[in-house]
This record gives sequence, structure tokens and C-alpha cells, in this order.
Amino acid sequence: MRKKITLKQIARELDVSVSTVSKALSGSKEISEDTTQKIQAFAKLYNYRPNNIALSLKNRKTKTIGILIPEIVHHFFSTVIRGIELIANRRGYNVIVGLSNESFSKEIINMEMLANGSIDGFILSISKETLLKQDYHHFNATINQGIPIVMFDRVVNEVNCDKVIVDDFNGSVKAVKKLIENNCKNIALITTMDYVSVGRLRTQGYIEALEEHKIFADSNLILKIDDSLDVENHLEVLENEIERFFKTNNTIDGVFAVNELYAVTAMKVARKLGLSIPEDIQVIGFTDGVLSKHATPSLTTVSQHGQKMGEQAANLLIDRLEAIDSESDQYIVNDNPKHDFIKIVIETELIERESTK
Amino acid sequence: MRKKITLKQIARELDVSVSTVSKALSGSKEISEDTTQKIQAFAKLYNYRPNNIALSLKNRKTKTIGILIPEIVHHFFSTVIRGIELIANRRGYNVIVGLSNESFSKEIINMEMLANGSIDGFILSISKETLLKQDYHHFNATINQGIPIVMFDRVVNEVNCDKVIVDDFNGSVKAVKKLIENNCKNIALITTMDYVSVGRLRTQGYIEALEEHKIFADSNLILKIDDSLDVENHLEVLENEIERFFKTNNTIDGVFAVNELYAVTAMKVARKLGLSIPEDIQVIGFTDGVLSKHATPSLTTVSQHGQKMGEQAANLLIDRLEAIDSESDQYIVNDNPKHDFIKIVIETELIERESTK
Repeated sequence: MRKKITLKQIARELDVSVSTVSKALSGSKEISEDTTQKIQAFAKLYNYRPNNIALSLKNRKTKTIGILIPEIVHHFFSTVIRGIELIANRRGYNVIVGLSNESFSKEIINMEMLANGSIDGFILSISKETLLKQDYHHFNATINQGIPIVMFDRVVNEVNCDKVIVDDFNGSVKAVKKLIENNCKNIALITTMDYVSVGRLRTQGYIEALEEHKIFADSNLILKIDDSLDVENHLEVLENEIERFFKTNNTIDGVFAVNELYAVTAMKVARKLGLSIPEDIQVIGFTDGVLSKHATPSLTTVSQHGQKMGEQAANLLIDRLEAIDSESDQYIVNDNPKHDFIKIVIETELIERESTK
Repeated sequence: MRKKITLKQIARELDVSVSTVSKALSGSKEISEDTTQKIQAFAKLYNYRPNNIALSLKNRKTKTIGILIPEIVHHFFSTVIRGIELIANRRGYNVIVGLSNESFSKEIINMEMLANGSIDGFILSISKETLLKQDYHHFNATINQGIPIVMFDRVVNEVNCDKVIVDDFNGSVKAVKKLIENNCKNIALITTMDYVSVGRLRTQGYIEALEEHKIFADSNLILKIDDSLDVENHLEVLENEIERFFKTNNTIDGVFAVNELYAVTAMKVARKLGLSIPEDIQVIGFTDGVLSKHATPSLTTVSQHGQKMGEQAANLLIDRLEAIDSESDQYIVNDNPKHDFIKIVIETELIERESTK
């Protein structure tokens, strides 16, 4: 039997990007006619089999859910997977996990691999690079091929599908209000770059809470960490950045950090600078992971209920899959823009521990 | 097209276990002839396609590695996956992750699903339930079908394949010797039940280190935690057990714990009982995870170099896959018991931090 050629190999042979190949094969108008023809001819020659076999195999249910997450060393994503698994097992489905490693082309490659008959539908969270590029053609192509997607946490409006999100905005309003009520006068924010949607929403929540209390949101008190580069000594860089930030803003008496690593590192730096927590400086994080519970002092944090998110996402996907089963062959989503997609918003909860008064 | 029936469905229909179905289909002598015939007939009737299609599709390389791990919420396994990915990507392979959730039948179901044409070979760590049952037929059946396996961390002698292990025994000797040199007189061990091979080896290392120093290994100083039940309030149960243990053995001045969760929880309980670390009690863990680095005091620990394990495992598997490619069709492992399987032992390293003097 002939070797099966992959998107990646086609891209390498023709010296174009995986994304260009993927778009050309799905007939996207973004790619020039010339390039499209060249890619399609090459794919045909080498017997490339696109995923739309999925449609014709509609009745060949795999009873497997494909999960695609940006990174594996991440407690939040682990708890979401646990939630998905719990429901999947209960409802007779298996799960399989692919990793995008925050990379756009790995996301495409993984989707292509899994969609190729291994899974019935996807539950996924978008990679940082994809969000930065704002290129979502692979999600829409997958949906058009009859494979439903449920997105969680990092979602975008540009894709019509079921979504499960955390109320990032209000979670962060709650956290900052808590610091204000606890008499913090100079509340700093440690956040991500704006292209990460959850970071952006949490930043907006911080500003909203301050404005509601007529406090001026001083941009000097906002530290945006660029962790798009997965550098070897990431932790050290983070620590140095926060230390410099604290030294140039030595009136800070409250910190809201958009994830637990930033929060725990802020506590470490504060201790190093001789500050007591919560006496001199109060700290609140986001995400109730392993670190928050076991830190000393333990960290007050906004819980995202990752497991619950996973459970809801799995129920949405399986409901959708079973609805397709019971319908006839008419499930072509994008032909019907009014298709009732569901967006579930999970309420956050402020878990108070020792890092606040 | 006809629906594809799964092992699980056959098991449910015939009211037998997944393992029985799996064994009957691979012609195992353990299953009665009657049952085997019934299962094989049923499988044939419903068009069940066993994995040995993999053999006939030898040239249809997927360039994908299947990783099968016992649990996802576990920093050590995450770092191994990171190592596997690093090498896999460098050598042109993709990875896909299945989860056994420490369950024997889920391990079988996942292997069957992935082996069904999605992957070229496996890198896996055995589930606790499988170790407890000592039933490894599914690994051998997979290898016999021409799909190579590399096992890491939790491995068994009963399966002939490449393996990557940590030197658990010597890692634990190192840790306990450190406590002895630091003048601990009553060194406790917090470990798992014996059927978990790594826990057993670490326990043996503890005893060895004591005996080398002519110290009597008092069984009262060994606490074995049964975490086979994934109970809701697992952390609380663990904390209570350790507290009871410390109270009935109030001369303990050194603790070696076989994982970082036990170690960090021991530190928490010690603090609660008014003990100072490292002044009154010194603590060493195993696995250099997120908790060890960020705990207060930070935890002295035996690093397993998870990422390095993953890198070695990936290189072993890909070397094996490419050797199969370059050989003819003669790669039937179990016909040749002297086939040169490789066992790589990763040396551990004691990382000294604040929890020891």
C-alpha cells in the first residue's frame, strides 16, 4: 500500500506553510488560484486523503472525543480533561488528547490527524499563536466536514460552535473589589499580553472594579508578561520582571495576578523584598490549581471550576453528536447561521485563603 | 457503512469483561474454548476488526506516537510527555495521548483504539490496576501485531520491550543517606502500597540505606498510603493519616516521602503540630515537580528527570520504528526472545533545598 502523505509533507515539498496547504485543499479564496491548483494537483498525485471522508463515514461512530489543548503541563487543562473524561465515560465515550503546544501549525496537524476517522467530535481550547494570527479556517473547515466542535476557555466569535467559558471579566471584578474592600490603595495587575483573550478580559475586569470605586487605573501598575517565547529560564525571567516592577512601584499593597504562577511568583518576590503577606501586601490569583492550595501562605484565588467546564463541554458535544445521529444527513452547520449554538458561562468563585486579610 | 463494534460493546453484549474479550480474540489459552468460540463468532458476526490490520498496513506509516499514561493531573507524566514531544517533533513525528485513569479495562480500550491504524508505536506507563492484576496480555498482543512498545517508569519484566526507568532504588538510598548524614535519628518513610513497583523499589532503597548504617528499620516508622481509591476528599484523608502517624511516632525527625504530594502534605502536618522544618524535622520528597520548587520551605527532593525519560523513550521508539522500516517483514519480536531490547536507567539527582539542613 502506498504511504499516506500528510499536510506537513505537502507543505515541505512545495515550500509553503501547513496553513496554506490546509486552506488550498479546503478551497479557501485566500489562496491564489495558481497555488491552490498546484497544491491540489500535488495532493492528488500523492493520494492525499482529506478529512471529508468523515462525512461519508457518518455512521461509523468511533465513540471517541478528541480533546485538543495548548499545553499539557498546566493544572487547569488537566482538570478540564478530568471533567470531560468523567462525563464521557458515563455516557459511553472514550477520549484522546492532542497537544498544540501553543503552535498554530501543530494545532492544524493535530486536528487533521484526529479528524481522520479517529474521533466523532472535538473539545478544544485555541493555541496562543492561532489567537495571535486570528486565523480560524481549520476550525470552520472541520465543522463543515460534519465534525462538531465545542470550544472552552479560549474561544473566538469567528467560529460558530458550542462554547463553554469562564466569566473571566466578573471573576476579576470580584477579586479586585475584594482587595479594595480590604483597604488596598495601590492595586497592581500582573497579566498576559492582550492577544490572549482570557488575559484581556481579566485586565478589563481589573479596570472596571477600580473605576466603579472611582480609583484611577494607573498604567504603571499594570505589568504585562510576554510568555509567548517558551524560554528555558522562563521562571527566572518572570521573577526578575516582577522584582523590577515591585521596586519601581514600591507603594503597591495589593496584587491581582491573572494566573497562579504569576501570583505565587509575586509572593516569592515580595518575601524576598522583606514584605509580609498579607500584612504589607495582599495577593489574589486566578485558577485554583495545586500551587494555590499548597503555597505558604496559601493563595486567595478565583476558581474557574475547570472540572465543571469539562463536564459541561462533554455534555454539549455528546448531546450534539446524538442529535446528529437522530437527524438525517442534514447537519451542515454553516449553511444555517441561525443554528442554535449554546454558550455556557461558568461562574467563578473567590476562594479566600491566607494571602488576603 | 456498517457501524464498527468495539471491544467494550462486545463485552457488554456477552456480559463478560473487556479483558476476556480481548484475550479470546487474541486466542489466549486462559479463556475456555466455549467462551472463546462464542466471542469470536459474535465478533465476526458484527464485523469486528481486530488490530492486526496494523501488520498488513505496515507501510502505511502514521508518523504518530501513541502515549498512554495512568493519569493526566500529574506533573511527572506531563514532563515525560514534554520530553517525548520534543524528540518526536524534531524527528518528524506527532504524538497523541490516551489516558488509562489507572484502570485496567480503560488501558485495554485505549490501546485498541489507538492501535487501530492511528499510531505507529506506543510509549506507555502501566496503570495501577493492571499492576495489581498482573495481567499483561494486551501489551504482548500489541507487540505481536507488529506495533512496538516502549515502557517508562512503571514497567514489568513480563513484557519484552524497550524500557526507560528511573533508578528508584538508588535515588531513595541517596535521599535516606542524606537524612542520616544530617543526624536524623528516627527516619520515617511515607510510601505507596507495594504493588506499585516504583513505590516498592523506593521502600527497598529506604531499608537498604538504614541497614548500611546499621540502623534498625522499624516498621512502625513506615506509613503505606492506599490511594487506589480515587476518593473525593483524597487530600483530607492523606492529611489525617499522616497526622495520626506523626502523633503516634512523635520522635520522628526525618521524613522520606516517595512523591512530592506526600512530602508537601507531611510538611503541612508538621507545621500544624508546631514542628519547625528543617530544625525539628527534615523532609525529602521524590519527583521534582511544581510543588517542590514553590513549597515553603522549598522541598529537597530526588529528581527523576521526567523530560529526559521522555526524550530517551521517544528516541528508543523512533529508532525501533525506523529499524523496522529498513528491515524486511521479519520483525516479529516474540519469535526471537533474544531480540536486543534496551533498558535505559536514568540516574536520579538529589536537589537540596530548604527542607533539609
